[in-house]
Amino acid sequence: MTTQSRILIKGGKVVNEDFSEMTDVYIEDGVISAVGSDLQVAAGTRVIDATDRLVLPGGIDTRTHMELSFMGTTAVDDFHNGTKAAVAGGTTMILDFVIPQKGCSFLEAYEQRRTTADPKVCCDYSLHMAVTWWDDTVKKEMETLVRDKGVNSFKMFMAYKDVFMLRDNELYAVFAQCKEIGAIAQVHAENGDLIAERMLSLGITGPEGHEMCRPEEVEAEATQRAITIAHAANCPLYVVHVMSKSAAKVVANARRNGRVVFGEPIAAGLGTDGINYWHKDWAHAAGFVMGPPLRPDSSTPGYLMDLLANDDLSVAGTDNCTFSVCQKALGKDDFTKIPNGVSGVEDRMSVIWEKGVHSGKMDENRFVAVTSTNAAKIFNLYSRKGRIAKGSDADLVIWDPEATRVISAKTHHQAVDYNIFEGMLCNGLPVVTISRGKVVYENGQLFTKLGMGRYIPRKPFSEFVYNRINQREKVGQVWALEPYTGEIISIAPKRS
Amino acid sequence: MTTQSRILIKGGKVVNEDFSEMTDVYIEDGVISAVGSDLQVAAGTRVIDATDRLVLPGGIDTRTHMELSFMGTTAVDDFHNGTKAAVAGGTTMILDFVIPQKGCSFLEAYEQRRTTADPKVCCDYSLHMAVTWWDDTVKKEMETLVRDKGVNSFKMFMAYKDVFMLRDNELYAVFAQCKEIGAIAQVHAENGDLIAERMLSLGITGPEGHEMCRPEEVEAEATQRAITIAHAANCPLYVVHVMSKSAAKVVANARRNGRVVFGEPIAAGLGTDGINYWHKDWAHAAGFVMGPPLRPDSSTPGYLMDLLANDDLSVAGTDNCTFSVCQKALGKDDFTKIPNGVSGVEDRMSVIWEKGVHSGKMDENRFVAVTSTNAAKIFNLYSRKGRIAKGSDADLVIWDPEATRVISAKTHHQAVDYNIFEGMLCNGLPVVTISRGKVVYENGQLFTKLGMGRYIPRKPFSEFVYNRINQREKVGQVWALEPYTGEIISIAPKRS
Amino acid sequence: MTTQSRILIKGGKVVNEDFSEMTDVYIEDGVISAVGSDLQVAAGTRVIDATDRLVLPGGIDTRTHMELSFMGTTAVDDFHNGTKAAVAGGTTMILDFVIPQKGCSFLEAYEQRRTTADPKVCCDYSLHMAVTWWDDTVKKEMETLVRDKGVNSFKMFMAYKDVFMLRDNELYAVFAQCKEIGAIAQVHAENGDLIAERMLSLGITGPEGHEMCRPEEVEAEATQRAITIAHAANCPLYVVHVMSKSAAKVVANARRNGRVVFGEPIAAGLGTDGINYWHKDWAHAAGFVMGPPLRPDSSTPGYLMDLLANDDLSVAGTDNCTFSVCQKALGKDDFTKIPNGVSGVEDRMSVIWEKGVHSGKMDENRFVAVTSTNAAKIFNLYSRKGRIAKGSDADLVIWDPEATRVISAKTHHQAVDYNIFEGMLCNGLPVVTISRGKVVYENGQLFTKLGMGRYIPRKPFSEFVYNRINQREKVGQVWALEPYTGEIISIAPKRS
Amino acid sequence: MTTQSRILIKGGKVVNEDFSEMTDVYIEDGVISAVGSDLQVAAGTRVIDATDRLVLPGGIDTRTHMELSFMGTTAVDDFHNGTKAAVAGGTTMILDFVIPQKGCSFLEAYEQRRTTADPKVCCDYSLHMAVTWWDDTVKKEMETLVRDKGVNSFKMFMAYKDVFMLRDNELYAVFAQCKEIGAIAQVHAENGDLIAERMLSLGITGPEGHEMCRPEEVEAEATQRAITIAHAANCPLYVVHVMSKSAAKVVANARRNGRVVFGEPIAAGLGTDGINYWHKDWAHAAGFVMGPPLRPDSSTPGYLMDLLANDDLSVAGTDNCTFSVCQKALGKDDFTKIPNGVSGVEDRMSVIWEKGVHSGKMDENRFVAVTSTNAAKIFNLYSRKGRIAKGSDADLVIWDPEATRVISAKTHHQAVDYNIFEGMLCNGLPVVTISRGKVVYENGQLFTKLGMGRYIPRKPFSEFVYNRINQREKVGQVWALEPYTGEIISIAPKRS
Repeated sequence: MTTQSRILIKGGKVVNEDFSEMTDVYIEDGVISAVGSDLQVAAGTRVIDATDRLVLPGGIDTRTHMELSFMGTTAVDDFHNGTKAAVAGGTTMILDFVIPQKGCSFLEAYEQRRTTADPKVCCDYSLHMAVTWWDDTVKKEMETLVRDKGVNSFKMFMAYKDVFMLRDNELYAVFAQCKEIGAIAQVHAENGDLIAERMLSLGITGPEGHEMCRPEEVEAEATQRAITIAHAANCPLYVVHVMSKSAAKVVANARRNGRVVFGEPIAAGLGTDGINYWHKDWAHAAGFVMGPPLRPDSSTPGYLMDLLANDDLSVAGTDNCTFSVCQKALGKDDFTKIPNGVSGVEDRMSVIWEKGVHSGKMDENRFVAVTSTNAAKIFNLYSRKGRIAKGSDADLVIWDPEATRVISAKTHHQAVDYNIFEGMLCNGLPVVTISRGKVVYENGQLFTKLGMGRYIPRKPFSEFVYNRINQREKVGQVWALEPYTGEIISIAPKRS
Repeated sequence: MTTQSRILIKGGKVVNEDFSEMTDVYIEDGVISAVGSDLQVAAGTRVIDATDRLVLPGGIDTRTHMELSFMGTTAVDDFHNGTKAAVAGGTTMILDFVIPQKGCSFLEAYEQRRTTADPKVCCDYSLHMAVTWWDDTVKKEMETLVRDKGVNSFKMFMAYKDVFMLRDNELYAVFAQCKEIGAIAQVHAENGDLIAERMLSLGITGPEGHEMCRPEEVEAEATQRAITIAHAANCPLYVVHVMSKSAAKVVANARRNGRVVFGEPIAAGLGTDGINYWHKDWAHAAGFVMGPPLRPDSSTPGYLMDLLANDDLSVAGTDNCTFSVCQKALGKDDFTKIPNGVSGVEDRMSVIWEKGVHSGKMDENRFVAVTSTNAAKIFNLYSRKGRIAKGSDADLVIWDPEATRVISAKTHHQAVDYNIFEGMLCNGLPVVTISRGKVVYENGQLFTKLGMGRYIPRKPFSEFVYNRINQREKVGQVWALEPYTGEIISIAPKRS
Repeated sequence: MTTQSRILIKGGKVVNEDFSEMTDVYIEDGVISAVGSDLQVAAGTRVIDATDRLVLPGGIDTRTHMELSFMGTTAVDDFHNGTKAAVAGGTTMILDFVIPQKGCSFLEAYEQRRTTADPKVCCDYSLHMAVTWWDDTVKKEMETLVRDKGVNSFKMFMAYKDVFMLRDNELYAVFAQCKEIGAIAQVHAENGDLIAERMLSLGITGPEGHEMCRPEEVEAEATQRAITIAHAANCPLYVVHVMSKSAAKVVANARRNGRVVFGEPIAAGLGTDGINYWHKDWAHAAGFVMGPPLRPDSSTPGYLMDLLANDDLSVAGTDNCTFSVCQKALGKDDFTKIPNGVSGVEDRMSVIWEKGVHSGKMDENRFVAVTSTNAAKIFNLYSRKGRIAKGSDADLVIWDPEATRVISAKTHHQAVDYNIFEGMLCNGLPVVTISRGKVVYENGQLFTKLGMGRYIPRKPFSEFVYNRINQREKVGQVWALEPYTGEIISIAPKRS
Repeated sequence: MTTQSRILIKGGKVVNEDFSEMTDVYIEDGVISAVGSDLQVAAGTRVIDATDRLVLPGGIDTRTHMELSFMGTTAVDDFHNGTKAAVAGGTTMILDFVIPQKGCSFLEAYEQRRTTADPKVCCDYSLHMAVTWWDDTVKKEMETLVRDKGVNSFKMFMAYKDVFMLRDNELYAVFAQCKEIGAIAQVHAENGDLIAERMLSLGITGPEGHEMCRPEEVEAEATQRAITIAHAANCPLYVVHVMSKSAAKVVANARRNGRVVFGEPIAAGLGTDGINYWHKDWAHAAGFVMGPPLRPDSSTPGYLMDLLANDDLSVAGTDNCTFSVCQKALGKDDFTKIPNGVSGVEDRMSVIWEKGVHSGKMDENRFVAVTSTNAAKIFNLYSRKGRIAKGSDADLVIWDPEATRVISAKTHHQAVDYNIFEGMLCNGLPVVTISRGKVVYENGQLFTKLGMGRYIPRKPFSEFVYNRINQREKVGQVWALEPYTGEIISIAPKRS
């Protein structure tokens, strides 16, 4: 259909990471073919009026787990539902996960995941790989995945002892391999040993136990440790779901100290807090269970947003992994059996606009950076994704900063039957979402089709991440001091 | 000459703040008319081969004092010499100063400065205004300067007691006015009272006394105070010449805490240190005298560079204000009479490349941000300046990252007879500088003409600075808490 | 009466700052004559059984303002009521204030205060002097006060602009004089200029405006400034009423950095918070008005207690200055007219025990340090006061750590008609208070007499404070670097 | 001999932790029988004139390894030489170690160590136990050691992978047991995995490699981890040999945050630095090899001393473990084979006086606290040790603060053939040392006898350490939040 292959967005304020300008955007065949005024367009081009609205690069959700099988059940948002919800919220790309079982082939797991996702996704996506065990086979498969499959990011667990957890020596080995092949290492940073011990000794069964057995210092400790190990290997590090003030501070201080490390808060952590675990309604409380947990310190979301605004934290994801109440109820007598995960893929953009931009903590350009551009840079998708410029993919959102909505499970597009942001008033919302040059969401209606998204392979050695790493390797500054190269004197014992 | 009005830069790697790409740049009539591959160019276009080289936005030096009359003498680098040196170093714009005497008209001082500079400048320039005294006349002149003269930045002194120093209540008033008119407030942050007391009581006459009477805590204190006052007025603040670790930390922590504040280290502070004040050769020591002083803690330059790399500090200037040895000698018996000032306008880009990029602390994109783009954003010149893009001014540098040179007064282009970076080996240097579309420096030769630069007026309310300020004003979050609006009870005394 | 002049306290656990032991205490003629087991006592000695109880050095309240005339009215607790309340709460010495009007003689003000207090006090006391203005007369009177009147502590205001406030140059001069005469400098640390500006521009009249015009960064800024100035003068500094987390952190960091500085939180700040200013009952809210204000951040009291426990803060006072509701009502239409001051002299010991010891933040020995011993050391009363040892004054409290009470204005001994800790359950309370060897409070009953306390003169150069100051002066390490002592080269200008 | 059993020290200034006073000390039968003026003494009492001198509690060295067999050789200072050197330096008690081999009985190792030490020691001593492996046998033996053998302190290694290193889950278990039995847990805090990896990949063989494979962040990381684990177990923690600024800061911040943790710098770290590893003379460099290493950042010793002065660090030991040059030479081709260890037991007191007291960083009372009193409190020896008071052991030093000496291997009393402080000028030195009431060192001469010292058993649950631990256990504040105790709602799935 002509109107779908050529679109002119007129009269809007185009917002990129670096600045905003009143200009038009012309889209042809899924790509932005021109940005400017008085553009020549072909006959039959659909014109969308964006007067008084912002035109943003489509959001990139750095972390989702669609239809993940975990803790005996499967997340209710599959790749279809999940990506429909994404575009309804202004997100046009997700980075999902392959999580191979211990001992299993990474390549096989990757292929299975592609087989599941490809026919369903309604927007572009890519895949991180979880390194859940370690030996030489894994090492080789990592190389293959980078070279042949477009995977340039690997995630390691410091928690989930005896399931996914790697020990420090294994972490070092994986980091060293990541650096070798130009990938970015990611960690789930919690001290798994300590959580295991605390779980046994706590004597509490309700959802509040989930937080009590893994308080924020357990997260901060592991974050510090991961950064130390990554630096020893001169490997770039990305800390997923930074949930606490103290862990965020560890990341921020490391960056100030020159470490190549990125911290990712998530929508849940930016928009709500861990007091919910003490909610008297069990179902309510259980709905917030994820790892690492939200924090009961109510100043946490504002603090994380301050750091995100200031580039101490780099990018915001969701860790979207949704289980309905009846699934959460698997842990009704024992919090350790509550499936871990929260929603967010649909509401991320609105929550960050409300808490970040509307509040005056960040401006619209920084909003674009943390919801889209930085993700594109880190994961080597830039400037195909993350920027409105000639030649970039036509993934855009038309955003109305004056419109408002109240988040609710009754109106959201996700499959899950509750919403952790229930009742939150959001200023600012997407009115049109365009994916690969097609309008997929407009005025509350979805126009998606199964499998219309594409898997996006990513190359290694992202310059944004690796320029400094490589230069440091070259000038040998990792450990700062030059070895002694002089002669060694005689060591015959002194006679007294 | 045709070759001067049309230039094609071919085969280089164009480096902007956000990313780098192999592409060509076409310049017509002083403006970048196209960026891309296989560009159509007019006949007679000069082609410059930039293979294996970087093409960078021309540097913007945020702080110079050409031919400043100060402490009984006049800086030897005038606007002609100074801007020649600038372009030889890859800088294509300077922000200089108007410093009216106490009680004098700001507008007159502005006009005088224009009269001095316009016929001499070899590259574009603009002017900050120093607010050296305060009353309602000043307040009105500030408004006029913003509206009619393109001045959007004002600088206040917290030091130089009885000369330029403003008290806290005056600072508050100036900040409030800046915010009203959309300007950015700048401060020289040192506690002037304390310096005055220390000068009297120290009992030292040599150059080392300069640092000893104003140690870094005097700078850190004033920085903290300025930030506090600016926040009370909801005014954006720019701290000029951040010279110490502790002051830099104050700025960095304030930013983390959400303050709209920018810190500017200078080339001198990034490339050398205050141990020089203890140098046995008086002339050597005196050559480094500036205020605030360089710090004897030798870890300072590396720390400042780390913070600059991490966006805790935003932009690098020079405070270039050069006095020759015989001028410095005015203070040979009393350090308080040594004219304050150091060089830097020529070497800034090389020093930052060497200490920042070559060392692996920042990449080439961050280099562009701190030497050019951020200055353009803060002072509302973006994207006319600070970016290589269609429509931007053709201010560019072709940079050879592999070439090296040794800095020396014997070879520099500045008028001053010594160089504070004497002997420093720099990797990376400019091979061609283009200003307003004209080659002004090439392979060591200057092609400048007197007055070929232009004064660039700047508009108020830079979005990069004011978006957050305005939004905070709107949502009323400066002091965070809502007033009590309920009823007041009877206050009749309790009877006992 | 014999029983009053000789007392044996048997079977208790004697708690000093350094450790606790089960032992007996024998008191004769107002002095502790022996500490040990199986003591020989004279016939007629009264024996008090302290089994299961603690025997503590009597509390020293470092800061009270009994019957202060301020803001048009006079504090309702005079020296009689105030000291009765003190001993009822376990405090056996207060440090009150002389606050001369601007331009008035310090010596006359001192004598007047003595005349007022001496006939009324029911426990020992001493006096700080406020330096409310500055010239050479003041300088000389300070010397006289130290030499002849036993005043070794002076307090300066950085707030109360145009009333008491000193500027930075005056602060430096007073600090320099303090150091010369061996006194300790104290500051009320708030930026008076900023408060004055905020008061005018705020547009709020209720008690919440009191906090809003002087938020905690105004306190932190002044604290940093005072420490910087004191260090420049090598003068020991004592920051009175540290009310905020950020100001406390400034003190703590300065101490870590080697500054001779002491921070004093007060009972109000340790036991309650500034949310009260937003209370819907005006009289309730106004009751908490003091300067600097309590902070709305509810994590403040716990944070201050953590720092007090860890010796980042040194000692706890009260700033007791009580105005009844009908006095507070002077400001019912304008918070700037609400008389500033809160209660605390009676409840200080209980509040700190409850929030500090019962909570597990500090042990009983640290409790003694912060309520008594450190004050004695800093103000040069040790070991006459602040320790249970042979030869010390017999100022003691017998403390029941298991007993509880609920604080209430209905039962307290102060004259004021409300209590800021109303309703607080306190574990731990005094059962017997002994002042100068006499039982002045026992089982809820007071046995005080008008004027039974004594004025305690204090000598200058307290070793606890001045040992380091003097040694630093001697080894010249204040500004850390050695002056240049070499030759100066010829400075004839270079010929070019 | 009469003169040995009764001594009167006259005219000195007796310095305890809390204050100093001019008074006399009377010693009978190894114990201080009186402190005061005009004391009655028995006939034949030896009188020592201490005019113009200080009388200090004898030093307690918290960490020594006399005649330790380690890395294929045995430390040259045995219990005889080592304790002679100790008393020559003013130290009258050492805490040495039992380090059982993996799998071996702790009780047997303890008995062997006693058998070695008892006949040789020239001053009192006690023993820490290293927990080098973990199972239920170990757990039971720990209990026996506490109950029957007077061991109340256990040390765990986080380094020395595959030799002594415990994993986090084992650390948690040991900490939990320590808390159960009232012992204090100690850790050697370095990330052993990371060191092992770095050792393999570094490619350097000289002594500088020792530091390069275990830079300070490896120490800081492990310190943070240990504190986190200890807090989870509510166990008091003592971090031995804090060697770096970053690790010290971790300890300091944890204390500020309420953790019951103590940090111990050592004489080597306070008096010299890691630049020595880059010394061109191999033997010189190797002489400084110990773990964790000294740091090349030359501001480290001053920083550690600042923190020790401020009670951020608590107590100073030595880790004295001396190998002569020919022993060090075992690693001449491979730094990993250099026996780890440095001297210090003799010079500790002088180094701390010089760098701490003479410099003005701490006063004489704090000197006593960090060299003696705090150790006595933490390890439950107080006030038998660590205080000059009636009833305390007569372990004293008469100290001349004006005397000076230059440290040298030529004059020291240790067996090792070099001294890491060679050439350091020290103000302040011991002139007489008294151990158990006997003069063992006077005017440069030793009067020791083999085995004249005693093993001092220590009881568990030191109040100084455990008061807070126990109270927290009681009020349940370890993890801060109350469990949810309400009803659980029906979790039937919502129907859609």
